[in-house]
Amino acid sequence: MTATATREATVFVPGHITGFFSAHHTDDPTTTGSRGAGLTITTGVELHVRRGPTVTPEIKLNGKSISIEAVDNVIDILEIGDINVTAQTALPLGAGFGVSGAMTLGVAFGSNAVAAETNTRAESALITAAHCAEVRAGTGLGDVVAQARGGFPIRVEPGAPHVGQLDGITATPRVEYCSFGAVSTESVLNANTDVLTTAGEQALKTLQATPTATQFMTLAYQFGVETGLLTSEVQEVIADVHTTGGTAAMAMLGNTVFALGDDLSAAGYDPVVCQIHNGGVTIQQQGSNRVGDQCNPQTIEHSS
Amino acid sequence: MTATATREATVFVPGHITGFFSAHHTDDPTTTGSRGAGLTITTGVELHVRRGPTVTPEIKLNGKSISIEAVDNVIDILEIGDINVTAQTALPLGAGFGVSGAMTLGVAFGSNAVAAETNTRAESALITAAHCAEVRAGTGLGDVVAQARGGFPIRVEPGAPHVGQLDGITATPRVEYCSFGAVSTESVLNANTDVLTTAGEQALKTLQATPTATQFMTLAYQFGVETGLLTSEVQEVIADVHTTGGTAAMAMLGNTVFALGDDLSAAGYDPVVCQIHNGGVTIQQQGSNRVGDQCNPQTIEHSS
Repeated sequence: MTATATREATVFVPGHITGFFSAHHTDDPTTTGSRGAGLTITTGVELHVRRGPTVTPEIKLNGKSISIEAVDNVIDILEIGDINVTAQTALPLGAGFGVSGAMTLGVAFGSNAVAAETNTRAESALITAAHCAEVRAGTGLGDVVAQARGGFPIRVEPGAPHVGQLDGITATPRVEYCSFGAVSTESVLNANTDVLTTAGEQALKTLQATPTATQFMTLAYQFGVETGLLTSEVQEVIADVHTTGGTAAMAMLGNTVFALGDDLSAAGYDPVVCQIHNGGVTIQQQGSNRVGDQCNPQTIEHSS
Repeated sequence: MTATATREATVFVPGHITGFFSAHHTDDPTTTGSRGAGLTITTGVELHVRRGPTVTPEIKLNGKSISIEAVDNVIDILEIGDINVTAQTALPLGAGFGVSGAMTLGVAFGSNAVAAETNTRAESALITAAHCAEVRAGTGLGDVVAQARGGFPIRVEPGAPHVGQLDGITATPRVEYCSFGAVSTESVLNANTDVLTTAGEQALKTLQATPTATQFMTLAYQFGVETGLLTSEVQEVIADVHTTGGTAAMAMLGNTVFALGDDLSAAGYDPVVCQIHNGGVTIQQQGSNRVGDQCNPQTIEHSS
């Protein structure tokens, strides 16, 4: 990178919906995290990251300047310095889709992509920094590691890469959701955490014995009921979905209801429709590195 | 699954090119594997897997019946029983692209997707089975775990999931390759394995300090030179690429040369062009589970 050049990168981070979880706090953010399971979805956050002497340091989300504590933390941990981030998402904020985790992970990967080569880090270091940044901010325990992995992640052991342990369900169902916005964190703080931990750990054990999409939905639904976390809007939708023979559950934690296949639309709702996201955080464009030609496997020839 | 139904699934597994490696053998296939680094590519193997009482048990690759020891092993380990697999690939066999690893991993994931729900396994169990199947067959040490992960994988610690440890380079360069077919395994057996281990471990250490695409290519090139594994065809192409200021290296182990960006085409070759594959093995279709609608993030509405 020359002194005057502006380097740019575009990063995509999938949204993440947690179906059930148990929280695990330690004195060390790398070993702090959550067990549980959820789905990463093709609806996510796209970040355009720029760095250079003429770039204004600013973080924007959907056109507005925004301050996110976890993003500030990751800029601090990775010593990123001045950076310009323009992010776009169709996901509602605070509604259980891991937008703050996506912003944090996206800033970590994006800033790495525009760094001078000698400052480049491997993926595990970036994920660890983003995970610790979210844990310190108190805004997430398991979103970052799930969003870095992608797919249909099971959080088997809590914590950062090489500390925690991830697995996955192989299914790739269509996903539907309806969101009514943010959920009051008060309701969670008032929830009995012993009940939450017991319910989350029991659900994980059951899912590991039969790791299927159907089992996941049943367990996510039961977790919402057992922990008393369901909002009235979510309860109403779940009841309608049950009437038509489907299963729906609440995104933990947001005033959002989700289902697989067409379980929400079959019950008369008009949900957002997306898919399980194959793979995790991705750098889509980086400097002039990407030529963009498509793979052409027909021409296995040597013409020297 | 009813007794008469045929269940079907389509699975994609990316190809994997190893740039450098060191081999690590133990008495246990889960702890046996390789350290090193490579790239997973968008050219891969697509498997169509069918199961049911009227299905003929057969494994076909590019229209021909084929017997692959690692595939037989994974069918045995996972107690898959009768299965019909029709696989297609544009990758040459035995040429350093991990086709046998792809077939093995694809059969593990595909057979799981068509299994009765009570026999479903989580991803780590399937990857472990495929890894052990390849190790037992002696046809691969690190392809399966790399192909399950996708991206630009660094194999930090050898072995199956939750035993070995993976990391990644964040770059997403365009990849070019020219293949001259299979390499004689004799040349590898005749190579000094101490030299190979020393070269591979030193390369890994250097890459971890500066995990960039450019560094990877330099190390992969040096590994080929230091271990004496380069074939005469590969040597010739590498020399041409150096003349035009590029870097190329040999796929370990195949008579194949690869480069990033346009380094092969700039030297006058007509390579196959592909990209780093985002994400690893993927189930593309499974029974009637996939509705196929695209995500429509504009319609965040609730119309009950």
